[in-house]
Amino acid sequence: MSIESPTSSIGVTELFQLLRDGAPRTRAQLAKSTGLARSTVAARVDELMRLGLVTPVEGAASTGGRPPSQFALNPAARVVLAVDLGASHATVAVLDLAATIIAERTDALDIALGPERVLTHVIEAAAALLDSAGRVNADIGAVGIGVPGPVEHSTGRPVNPPIMPGWNNFDVPGWIAQHLDVPVLVDNDVNIMALGERAMSRPGTQHLVFVKVATGIGAGIVSGGRLVRGAQGVAGDIGHVRVARGSEVPCTCGNRGCLEALASGPAIARSLRQAGLDATNGNDVVELVKHGSIDAIQAVRQAGRDIGEVLTACVSLMNPSVIAIGGSMARVGEHLIAGVREIVYTRSTPLATEHLAIVHSAAADKAGVLGAGVLAIEHALAPESVQRLVRG
Amino acid sequence: MSIESPTSSIGVTELFQLLRDGAPRTRAQLAKSTGLARSTVAARVDELMRLGLVTPVEGAASTGGRPPSQFALNPAARVVLAVDLGASHATVAVLDLAATIIAERTDALDIALGPERVLTHVIEAAAALLDSAGRVNADIGAVGIGVPGPVEHSTGRPVNPPIMPGWNNFDVPGWIAQHLDVPVLVDNDVNIMALGERAMSRPGTQHLVFVKVATGIGAGIVSGGRLVRGAQGVAGDIGHVRVARGSEVPCTCGNRGCLEALASGPAIARSLRQAGLDATNGNDVVELVKHGSIDAIQAVRQAGRDIGEVLTACVSLMNPSVIAIGGSMARVGEHLIAGVREIVYTRSTPLATEHLAIVHSAAADKAGVLGAGVLAIEHALAPESVQRLVRG
Repeated sequence: MSIESPTSSIGVTELFQLLRDGAPRTRAQLAKSTGLARSTVAARVDELMRLGLVTPVEGAASTGGRPPSQFALNPAARVVLAVDLGASHATVAVLDLAATIIAERTDALDIALGPERVLTHVIEAAAALLDSAGRVNADIGAVGIGVPGPVEHSTGRPVNPPIMPGWNNFDVPGWIAQHLDVPVLVDNDVNIMALGERAMSRPGTQHLVFVKVATGIGAGIVSGGRLVRGAQGVAGDIGHVRVARGSEVPCTCGNRGCLEALASGPAIARSLRQAGLDATNGNDVVELVKHGSIDAIQAVRQAGRDIGEVLTACVSLMNPSVIAIGGSMARVGEHLIAGVREIVYTRSTPLATEHLAIVHSAAADKAGVLGAGVLAIEHALAPESVQRLVRG
Repeated sequence: MSIESPTSSIGVTELFQLLRDGAPRTRAQLAKSTGLARSTVAARVDELMRLGLVTPVEGAASTGGRPPSQFALNPAARVVLAVDLGASHATVAVLDLAATIIAERTDALDIALGPERVLTHVIEAAAALLDSAGRVNADIGAVGIGVPGPVEHSTGRPVNPPIMPGWNNFDVPGWIAQHLDVPVLVDNDVNIMALGERAMSRPGTQHLVFVKVATGIGAGIVSGGRLVRGAQGVAGDIGHVRVARGSEVPCTCGNRGCLEALASGPAIARSLRQAGLDATNGNDVVELVKHGSIDAIQAVRQAGRDIGEVLTACVSLMNPSVIAIGGSMARVGEHLIAGVREIVYTRSTPLATEHLAIVHSAAADKAGVLGAGVLAIEHALAPESVQRLVRG
């Protein structure tokens, strides 16, 4: 039990939560926002500067000889590690507290190798990247990891992930902690992409749905500024909602007529093969579309309509202001999104679509690693984390 | 700008947020939970008792002569007003801070009379109820109001509500403020029912969907413990999602095949009339079912399946742990919910339904007024509100 006076730590944390957005503020502005006395503010700002979390900023109103009068978050105070694990790749990056990528690498890596081999690669890649960035383990504020399956976010353990053999219930944070003594946040890859998309192109958006269309189809949902994870961490699993068109098409999940069985890259390729075209996978579909194949363009457009059918329910349920379409199939250009828009704008209520933008992902293939970084930064800058730093 | 030391108010608020759940705690427990020094805790608890917010509780370990050693929220410290406005009724209630209804009345009242006449009734009813409860205006911590239409929650203004002529963009909190100097929270009635259902029967549930099936069909969604409101306040508007069965049935919204056009009380009554039965509205359907009409039972079961079709998408998107079915049509008993369960459990992924309960609303016709009360209590006990009390 602490016997210290609580004053300093509480005041410090409160001030820092104001400054963490990166906008410079004067002591007077900070005093006004918090209701703290100016003398208290001055002492707390000094403490944050001593910890390196806050830095003086030359303000427009600053006059020559005086000391700088504005303060802001110091993005270089800490770094975070961001890890984006896919079915067949691993991207590891080092980001500063402003979510700028300082160092990054992507390697081909099969998630089915199991957690120990995959995470060993992550630890080694992180060490090399930190070294190249001139930072050390003690600088790491947190680690964010996205994996291609459902995750119990509170424990960081994957839950029955269909394409991650050996990972079910594996204690990812516990394993990482054997090598790095930092907090580890684990989440589903599409959830993380939604965070990355929001951070990169729509930082003020409170209600955003990110849809990944690739080998599978999934969504990451931000509502009220927070990720929707659900009771078992499987929220946003739109790939297995039934669509009207394909009620007899079998899906890998054991059901029939699922969106993923009709509109994913492999599903579109299969429909094109049945029409006599040479398409083994989603990449082939993208190439056919780029070469102007009418059959491929029509198939992609129809896949967009199927996705739109499910997203119409999503619009009614969540009332988002942005739907961003990403994933490897988004490379087909406007044809997919045109189908989505066609159905969503036809079937939704006017109020729900009045201000709704349906757009291509701006973060694109950086969405995952940026989102993992944002997840880690959020944790590293949260009141509890700063409180721990202050208490030393 | 305050020139006081910040210590007292900040420490007080922090302690109160621990005590507001109503569970008794000793000073030592409070010191441990907050990290505050025991002397600080003692002074802050005294301050909260002076404000009447906290009260001593005789603990199990208390010994005869000593002063009481445990403290908890004093539910009688303030009251809140809860208002549940429907298409044709107004319920007004006074609740204590533990969400116990102290006084309540329901009157027939047409929402289409417009905001000034309806809210004048509310103010008069509230005055009479407060009087009967022996409380005064100064005791009111906040007012919660549910209305049958979309609301911009941040301003408390209804947004294009289809069945509330004269209410569009009306400043409900501003009008109330002319009569009562207290914060006013306004929300959609089904959102509020979700809060009421959770408070009454599932206080620990973080992910709950409340479905109201009556003249219309709508849902209130709690995700991660918070209401999902969406960008325009129309989240949960499931009545206008298309269902496969009725693609040609016209809906009042101007589209075709909407859930509400197939599975609401009036829609079921219409289908029964077409089969030669005497059913004008949802109440008639309920009576027919209670009298064992096979046609009515089959129609209600099919309506349940239609609702289940839309809720399957909801389960995939939100991954709730509880779906509670309420509204006047829930009075048909098990037939409606049986149809819902049939489709949701058939079509959803095993992981999403492993721990999913689909149940009748326990709060039933109290859901609205309880939810409005909970909304008001949440505000009245929030740190900012308590801070204002402390500063006087």
